[in-house]
This record gives sequence, structure tokens and C-alpha cells, in this order.
Amino acid sequence: MISINWKPNKNSSIPLYKQIVDYIKEKIATGEWSISSKLPAQRELAERFEVNRSTVVEALDELKAEGLIEGKSGGGTIIVNNTWSLLASTPPPNWQSYISSGIHKPNLSIIQAINKFEYKENMIRLGTGELSPELFPKEMMKVVLDSVGDKIESLGYEEPKGSLYLRQIISQYLKKYEINASPDSILIVSGSLQALQLISLGILHPGSAVLSEKPSYIKSLHVFQSAGMRVKGIPMDDQGIRISEIMNNLNKATTLLYTIPTFHNPTGIVMPQHKRNELLEVCEKARLPIIEDDAYRDLWLDTEPPLPLKAKDKNGSVLYMGTISKSLAAGIRIGWLIGPEPVIERLGDIKMQTDYGSSSLSQWALAEWISSGLYEKYLEELREKLRVRRQVALNALEKYFSDIATWNKPSGGFYIWLKLKKQISMEKLFYLCCDNGILINPGNVYDFSENLNLRISYSYSSLYDLENGLKKLSQIIRLLN
Amino acid sequence: MISINWKPNKNSSIPLYKQIVDYIKEKIATGEWSISSKLPAQRELAERFEVNRSTVVEALDELKAEGLIEGKSGGGTIIVNNTWSLLASTPPPNWQSYISSGIHKPNLSIIQAINKFEYKENMIRLGTGELSPELFPKEMMKVVLDSVGDKIESLGYEEPKGSLYLRQIISQYLKKYEINASPDSILIVSGSLQALQLISLGILHPGSAVLSEKPSYIKSLHVFQSAGMRVKGIPMDDQGIRISEIMNNLNKATTLLYTIPTFHNPTGIVMPQHKRNELLEVCEKARLPIIEDDAYRDLWLDTEPPLPLKAKDKNGSVLYMGTISKSLAAGIRIGWLIGPEPVIERLGDIKMQTDYGSSSLSQWALAEWISSGLYEKYLEELREKLRVRRQVALNALEKYFSDIATWNKPSGGFYIWLKLKKQISMEKLFYLCCDNGILINPGNVYDFSENLNLRISYSYSSLYDLENGLKKLSQIIRLLN
Repeated sequence: MISINWKPNKNSSIPLYKQIVDYIKEKIATGEWSISSKLPAQRELAERFEVNRSTVVEALDELKAEGLIEGKSGGGTIIVNNTWSLLASTPPPNWQSYISSGIHKPNLSIIQAINKFEYKENMIRLGTGELSPELFPKEMMKVVLDSVGDKIESLGYEEPKGSLYLRQIISQYLKKYEINASPDSILIVSGSLQALQLISLGILHPGSAVLSEKPSYIKSLHVFQSAGMRVKGIPMDDQGIRISEIMNNLNKATTLLYTIPTFHNPTGIVMPQHKRNELLEVCEKARLPIIEDDAYRDLWLDTEPPLPLKAKDKNGSVLYMGTISKSLAAGIRIGWLIGPEPVIERLGDIKMQTDYGSSSLSQWALAEWISSGLYEKYLEELREKLRVRRQVALNALEKYFSDIATWNKPSGGFYIWLKLKKQISMEKLFYLCCDNGILINPGNVYDFSENLNLRISYSYSSLYDLENGLKKLSQIIRLLN
Repeated sequence: MISINWKPNKNSSIPLYKQIVDYIKEKIATGEWSISSKLPAQRELAERFEVNRSTVVEALDELKAEGLIEGKSGGGTIIVNNTWSLLASTPPPNWQSYISSGIHKPNLSIIQAINKFEYKENMIRLGTGELSPELFPKEMMKVVLDSVGDKIESLGYEEPKGSLYLRQIISQYLKKYEINASPDSILIVSGSLQALQLISLGILHPGSAVLSEKPSYIKSLHVFQSAGMRVKGIPMDDQGIRISEIMNNLNKATTLLYTIPTFHNPTGIVMPQHKRNELLEVCEKARLPIIEDDAYRDLWLDTEPPLPLKAKDKNGSVLYMGTISKSLAAGIRIGWLIGPEPVIERLGDIKMQTDYGSSSLSQWALAEWISSGLYEKYLEELREKLRVRRQVALNALEKYFSDIATWNKPSGGFYIWLKLKKQISMEKLFYLCCDNGILINPGNVYDFSENLNLRISYSYSSLYDLENGLKKLSQIIRLLN
């Protein structure tokens, strides 16, 4: 899509329509807007340029007359030529045909919309699964960067598995959760999503099926689907994924179980210890490897959650994913994957071919965060603040939603899984909310057959916005009811 | 592959063989060494553990007796069981079969060997395409990190195209090279390799062919091949790729030309301006898009090279890749891709699905490096040091190679493309060099049909190692001659 961050100058002596013509011409001439690209609708252009629609029409007419754009019979205007190609005898590359022939699937359109609206100013982001900038430990980060500056002697490429220094620190850190992992069995990744990407490219075959909770964060991604795998949702109860249903859904194509047993995204559910034992046993019997996504573990608010599945994994069935994206700062882009060495070696080799390793700067920073003890100290303060946020969200829900929805009280993580009592169009709700300055994460992003849920996150918005946004959201829902 | 960084304690009262048994058992029991993994050969185990081979045999015999490992008829020993699976009735997941069924190709075996040997101590790395740790601007980096610590207010996820602040700075920086690119047409990537990965996944279709120089750095990668594309090498002359040969090799499957017109990797060749104009014209006529890899531009040593192809690209035919991996620090892992907006949008969307964006910390650091002017200042100092290194390498070549090889004098970048006069086995040479503590990059990594060349880099080794390593290398070559 073409983006426009420019407006004509209303104080200029050059007519507005002419300024617009010149602006569009320049974009076309430099190749930034390529042949076959579609222009935004006239109404949208008028909004972006902050002019009347008639001014837009006048500008487009001139561009048409010059042979640069053309109206399509199916609606819309596309760029058909540029100043260079008007002179030359052959047209430039048809990038649109390149774009549509790529292997990788585009993101879900609603996810694309969410990614986009997140950068619109003054949006109240009620679903964002990320810590609020307010919670960022600026002073501690300064201390960390200061130490890092003293320690870094060079910043070259790292080993395929990532910085040995960081892997040693993580190996030590994981002992806290009774995970015994030598540095050799740890792969540093640029966040959990990359770990999944490497797994999908490195050890799965197209046509295979990955089981996961239904709903699940994984459904909102294309990481397995783009590599040719299916993701099959397994129903949950209030203790997590239903083990009997795993057994019922096993067949020859099944290659993996992806699960978030601790503060599940989006439902917030924690799987109790006895069920973890059972799950491990069942998967071991079925020879079904598990990907355990443990992104939220450090964010417990009431009591520490049960140990990871990996802690009791005696035969290397579990690939364990950890990260500080949720608990400290997503922008550091560092996570870790623990597994049998041959798997880790293979994925490390693919990672080298993909991006030559994760940012060394980020690896140094994380190593310093953990080894200095600042991370633990910060987590304690963070939990205190998240408890307040959780309470504000729960209070607002009680106040504005008790007759129109039900929800859980999470014991950690970021999410409240709100279930509306009455069926409404989630798409309508999403865009109506956007128009009213509220960004929500509808449940159907996590479960394509489901459309009565919303993922509410108390981690991102300010306390004021949380209360105010939930109030507004309840009003909008009532409008649609 | 299984890696071993442990040795038995010779002062312990526990017999050495028993310590080894316990060590291997623990690795198997925790699942780090998974079922079906192959153990290193007895000779290698003896070396790693620093024990006699008979001690290794004793340990393996005990493990065999316990049913944990098995000798294979074809040679080698594999893990067949673990303590858990001896008790349980079903075997654990067969990770080896997972590994061999992945989509992504493993790295070339010689590249894997290079990646590995790079982390072996005391290796003289004569081919490494990376700045020496000696050249790392530690003090400037401290200043940068200090400013970054003051400026960062939070470290969340970035926009799909990367930090707008950094894109604005890069947009400004590129004006120096007469490239007009608005921030919207810039995608921040985690290095150039990721840009290629995104292009291969996002806009090419399997079965298509990418043209490139022969030899080329791109041949050493699997980025296009793993996505199902062929890479077709086009011969070069001393002014770069042969344009007439591009035309001869065009067919319906041809989708792109990948080229390094400035300080080409591995030959060091610079394409002159008149030939750049011709190349652009020919590709525009053929509607053949170009990927211009401009990683080495800032590393000119004699005079500034001709402008990038992108500077004269009037219709958006060129996707331009830049990076500071070569000129400043590979470990920052930041590069940029410039192209028509629809292409950049599409690739940004895929990037979001791949790793949720590059390290914000790295993006902040790079923005500070460039905007503070420190990058320019640093480059001046760096060029001075690289000139010295180049001279030392050329002197050593003159002294030790004049009768056995020919080479070019590069005017920038890192590489001297050494061509041996007499045919020898490059594989033999590679491993013989490794045994003698010298790591080389053989030419056949960059051109599968070629085996008379070596890529010599003057950027990495110390001045002493450069002189000494080249001397040793010439001796080894003479041995094989």
C-alpha cells in the first residue's frame, strides 16, 4: 500500500491541485510508487491531503491526461506509467506481479490493520500484548548500557548458537526453574517468533500438522502455514489444553504440539502440575514432541506457577522457548530455544543462513541485565505495578461489562479473555472501535471459528486509558447489541 | 552434531572411564543428546576427553551393556535409548528424522566448517570478511551507548518497516550518494542476508532464476536455493559483470539480477560509471529488476567509487541494500533495503511475521552513530588503518606468492582475489591449512566450478598474522604443488 505523509501548503501561490500533481509525479518518477500500484480512494486522498475532494479529482484528471494513471473499471486508480517510461519504449518491472508470486503468505488482514493502527497517535490500545512505555526501566537500562559499553571489546558476528557468554548466563538462570540445559543446548534467537520460524523451516515437513490450544496466539501467525503446515486447534478447559482431545486428533501427519501452559495467550490459563505430568506422559507415549512457549513465566502476580514442562522432560521431547520480550522489552529482540543438541545445531545452522545471528548489542545487554541481578530486582517492581493494572482492569470490567460479558481473573501474564454474551460482528466492532480511537484484539484472530471473545490486555494502556477505554468499549458494544 | 566441552578430572578417585560413562549418561538422560544422535568417533572422543583410546572403549562398552548406545554396522556409535526409555515402553521422538525432513537446506559443508573453525582459538583467519576486533571503535561506542541510554524512553516493538527515526536518518544519509529515498521506501533489516531472505520469500517464485556475478558471495549462501530458486553465474571481466552475457542468459525464468558493483565480493572489482549506465539501461529494457548490494561502499581506500546504480534508477528497477556490518560492526546486525513502496510494504509485512522487527537497541545505536557524525569520523580513521593492512597483505603476497599466484590490487573493500597458477585440491588445502592453524576461504565457495582462487581478506587478522599467515599459506601450497 502507498502511504502519504505530506500535505500541500495552503499558503503557497501554487494551486493546491497542482502541488498534489507535482507530489504524485515525484513519487512516481523516483520509482517509490511503482507501476501497477493502486492509489488510495479519492475520499482518502482528500483526507490525507486535507483538501476538498474536488481538488483531488482535478489533480487526478491532470495525471490521467498525462498518461501517468488510469481509472480501473472495477474501481480505483492505478499508476500505469512514469515519466521515464513515457520516454522509453519498454515498461519497468511489474512489481505487483512479483509481489503476488512470492511464497510467503501475507499477514492476516486484521493483523495488518492492528500493526498499522498501533502507530496511529492517541489510540487506546486495549489488546496490545506488550509492556507500556510507562513501565520501561529507563534508569536501570542506562546502568546496563553503561556496563555494556565498558565490557564490549568488539562487535563481530557471533557463533551460530549465539554468544557463549549469554548462553552460559541463561543456562545458569534456567536452573531456577529446574531446567538443566548446558550452553551447547541453547540457541539464542531474535525472539520466540524466530524460534518458531526456524522450527518450521528446519525440522518440519510441508503437509504436517501442528496441534495447539484453541484459541491460541499461534493462530494469529502464519509461521507454520507459510511453510506448508496446518495448525489444528485442540479445545481447552480451565486447566488448559484437553489431553483426551490431543489423543483424538493424533494421526500420521501430526508432528508437534505447540503449547503455552503458563499464563496462556490469549486466555491467561495456567496448567496445574498434575496435568503437566499427564501431558508429558501422554506426549512421550505418543512420541509427540512439544514446543513449550514460556514467554510469560516471569510475570506471575499471585504465586509462582508450576515448573515448566521442560523441567521434567527426561528424554528431550520438549523444545523450550523463553524470551524477555514480554517481561522486559520486546525491542531487545532476544529469546532462547532449548532442546536436544542435534536439533539446536540444525536450527543454529539455518539461523546463520537467515540473519547471521541476533544483535550482539542486544545479547550483551541481556547478559548484563540478568548477570547483574537488575532483571530480578526490576521484575519485583514490575509485578507490583502489574497487580495494580490488573485490578484497575478488573474493576472497570465489573463496572461496565457485568451484564454483557464474562471473564476470568488471571494470576499472571497480561490477558483477560473477555467473552461477550450476545453475538455481534467482530469485524464491525473492530473498525467501529478504531474510528473511536480504541484498538482491540478480537478473539477471532486467535481462533478462526470463534467470535465472541476479546483479548483485553492490562499491560499496555495507562491506568486512565484502561478505565476510560473499557468504558467506551462497553458503550460501543451496547450500540451493536 | 554433538559437541563436548568437558574432560574427566584426573585427580578424582573415580576411574576416568566411569566419569565418562556418567557424563554421557547425564547428557542422554537430560535429553540434550537425543536418541538417534551419533557419537563422535573413538579417536575424537579420546582427544576431547584427553584420555587414552582404551579408556574410551571401556566407557562405551559399559554404555552398550546398559543398552544406551549401539555400534552401527556401517561404523559409528549411536544413542539408542535413555534411562527414561529403558523404563518406558515407547521410544522418544526420533529427532533425526525430523531434522532430515526440514525444508531448509543445510549450509554448505565447507561453510559450516568455516563457521565452526572461526571460533577455534589461535586460528589465523586469512579469509574472514569482517573487521578485526582491533579495529573496533570502543571509545566511540561507549559515547554512543551513553547517548542512547539518555534517549531511549522505551523499547517496544517497532513499526513493520523499522524505527521511523532511523529511517529518517538513513534517508538523509543516502542523499550523499544521490539516492532519493523517503523513509517510507526504506525497510530496516537485520543485515543484508535478511533482506535477501525476505526478497526470496516475498517476491520470487520457486523455479525462477537469479543472475549474479560468477564468482559471487551469493553462491556461498543458500538463501535463494532454499526457497527454490536457481542462481546462475554470469562471467565477469575487470570492470565487473559482462553485460552481453546477461542478455545471453535471459529467459522466461529469469527474475532478478543480484550484483555487487562496488568492491565486489570476492574479487574486489569496481564497475566504472559508464558500465553502470549501460547495465541500468539494459536491465530496464529487459524489465529485469536489480538487487544492488552496496555493503562495501564506505570502505573506499583510494578515491570514492562511482555512484550507486540506485542513484540513477528512475523507474524503481533497483532494490538497494546497505549495511554497516562491513564498515562498522557486524554484531549490530542492521542493514537497509530501499525500493518501491509496494515492495517495501510487502517485505516489511513478511519481516513482521519472521522476527517482529530488528533489535531496537541496535537501531538506536546506529541512528546515534550516523546522526552524531561519529560514523563519518570513524570511517576516516578506519580507512587509514585499512590502507596499511592492504599494503602489508600486498607486500606479503609479493614476497611469498609472486611465482605461484596472481592477484589484483583492490581500491577498497576487504578482498584480494588470489589465483593460483597450478591446480591443487582446494579441499585438501583447506583442511591442511586448518591443521596448521590457518583458516582460508577457498574460491569454490563462491563459484562451484572454480578451484584455483582464494579470497584473501586484509580486514581481519592482525598485521603480524597477515604477514605470517600468508607466509605459512604459501609454504602449504608449495607442499601440495
